[in-house]
Amino acid sequence: MDFTTQFNAFVAQADQALDKLLLPVSTRPARLHEAMRYSLQAGGKRLRPVLLLSAAELFRGKKHDPLPAGVAIECVHTYSLIHDDLPCMDNDDLRRGRPTAHKQFDEATALLAGDALLTYAFELLAQHYSAEPGFALVRELSDAAGSRRLIGGQMEDLLAEKKADATADQLEFIHLNKTAAMIDAALVMGGLTGGANETELATLRTFGRELGLTFQIVDDILDATADSATLGKTAGKDAKADKTTFVKLHGLDGARRYAREHTESALAALTNLSGDTAFLRRLVETMLVRKH
Amino acid sequence: MDFTTQFNAFVAQADQALDKLLLPVSTRPARLHEAMRYSLQAGGKRLRPVLLLSAAELFRGKKHDPLPAGVAIECVHTYSLIHDDLPCMDNDDLRRGRPTAHKQFDEATALLAGDALLTYAFELLAQHYSAEPGFALVRELSDAAGSRRLIGGQMEDLLAEKKADATADQLEFIHLNKTAAMIDAALVMGGLTGGANETELATLRTFGRELGLTFQIVDDILDATADSATLGKTAGKDAKADKTTFVKLHGLDGARRYAREHTESALAALTNLSGDTAFLRRLVETMLVRKH
Repeated sequence: MDFTTQFNAFVAQADQALDKLLLPVSTRPARLHEAMRYSLQAGGKRLRPVLLLSAAELFRGKKHDPLPAGVAIECVHTYSLIHDDLPCMDNDDLRRGRPTAHKQFDEATALLAGDALLTYAFELLAQHYSAEPGFALVRELSDAAGSRRLIGGQMEDLLAEKKADATADQLEFIHLNKTAAMIDAALVMGGLTGGANETELATLRTFGRELGLTFQIVDDILDATADSATLGKTAGKDAKADKTTFVKLHGLDGARRYAREHTESALAALTNLSGDTAFLRRLVETMLVRKH
Repeated sequence: MDFTTQFNAFVAQADQALDKLLLPVSTRPARLHEAMRYSLQAGGKRLRPVLLLSAAELFRGKKHDPLPAGVAIECVHTYSLIHDDLPCMDNDDLRRGRPTAHKQFDEATALLAGDALLTYAFELLAQHYSAEPGFALVRELSDAAGSRRLIGGQMEDLLAEKKADATADQLEFIHLNKTAAMIDAALVMGGLTGGANETELATLRTFGRELGLTFQIVDDILDATADSATLGKTAGKDAKADKTTFVKLHGLDGARRYAREHTESALAALTNLSGDTAFLRRLVETMLVRKH
């Protein structure tokens, strides 16, 4: 199967599981469950579930179904987007061309739908797994989504936006946590459902960290270089907001060099795994050259 | 030990554990961790941790330390208050005489501090317990805090506030979920750390449900009858807002009768437990006659 076909197959699996594992919109209170489903089915890339499913496939043991964990991590990702979009945060009206949750419903419903998706991620893990690997999945997800990682990165990003002179150290903290946390958690959670051992889990974590940093640096580069039509969203927002980015700190050439270095580190990590890593290798390379 | 001494001893244990188990305010990002601690240490009654600790004591097995679970449930309770107080929800400036989180910090920080406390509850369970009873604690907490219980009750409350003609059925849904969910979860989680069996856990759940309903009905009665000075908060708010309450639906006498009935059901449930239930019996009785 070629890369794109495989990627789309993972996305289809994830979408099907999402549809099945989400609570029906008739669940009381209906408005809350409508808002949860509206946001989850807004047509995201499903990068985190795809990473989780592909990591689970590396291990021939494949002891546990990775799909509920894939849905759980997408719930956490979606909750973070809903809360990010709220007026007191980024105040965005549109996401992927559709009204954001607080525009489609109202602020209170969006707030509660985000809260509910975060909580539902843990419900899913608790309902669909036995204590092993379920409890390890809870540990991984709660740590990655917590105040020192995902939410911490979000907070630091807010603090940094207020000063155009954010430091390289701040930027690294933001990228490692706001972006990379959920990416390395996806890989580790995939490994846990696939029966990976401690060494393999550590390798997946390193790979995820390098992949997450590549992803974020390329994002900064695209914002500075692409046009809005290619990007599918407003380009040049960072420079306009005088936001500190990799490009601002290191210049375009510097940012490109960093992106290549992290790509190489990611690929090097994969050589420590004995399973078939072709899909993940292609994913890293695709991410480096992506145009949107 | 008399009831009040015992109650205060549980509160002191919970407060000490909170102080110890919360992340230090120097944890990066400091502002986020300050806001988390500010809200948790705002001087609450600690009713949920007290219930959890007292339920754990009923079982002589006492296999696991109940304190981290007590802190976890207080984190969830506190997150729900922070989000409740936000401008898009109840828009409250004060809680227990102190500025609410979004007044003391700002809306974005309050939002994220709430998110972080919810997540931290699961981190605490994952860090401080082995898979047994940890995974069962996660299941209980995620279910009680989820879209069909705590958050569902909150959503239904918002929907009902818009219409003064909320039904008895809606009111029951709100009370069972917004109020009773965290109370019965506290008791069941205490039972889990104490090594209760399935039958005992079911009894604790019934007891919690009846206690939670008593608590909420008495709240409605006090709002209608007490003066603000005794209550320690603005009295008569419900009638002024034409909010549907037990008193509005059933009259004062009807509400008092319901409160007594739920108290009796709670006490009856306790007779199914073989441990020393004197403390919980006194707690129910105290709740029925409380003045604030």
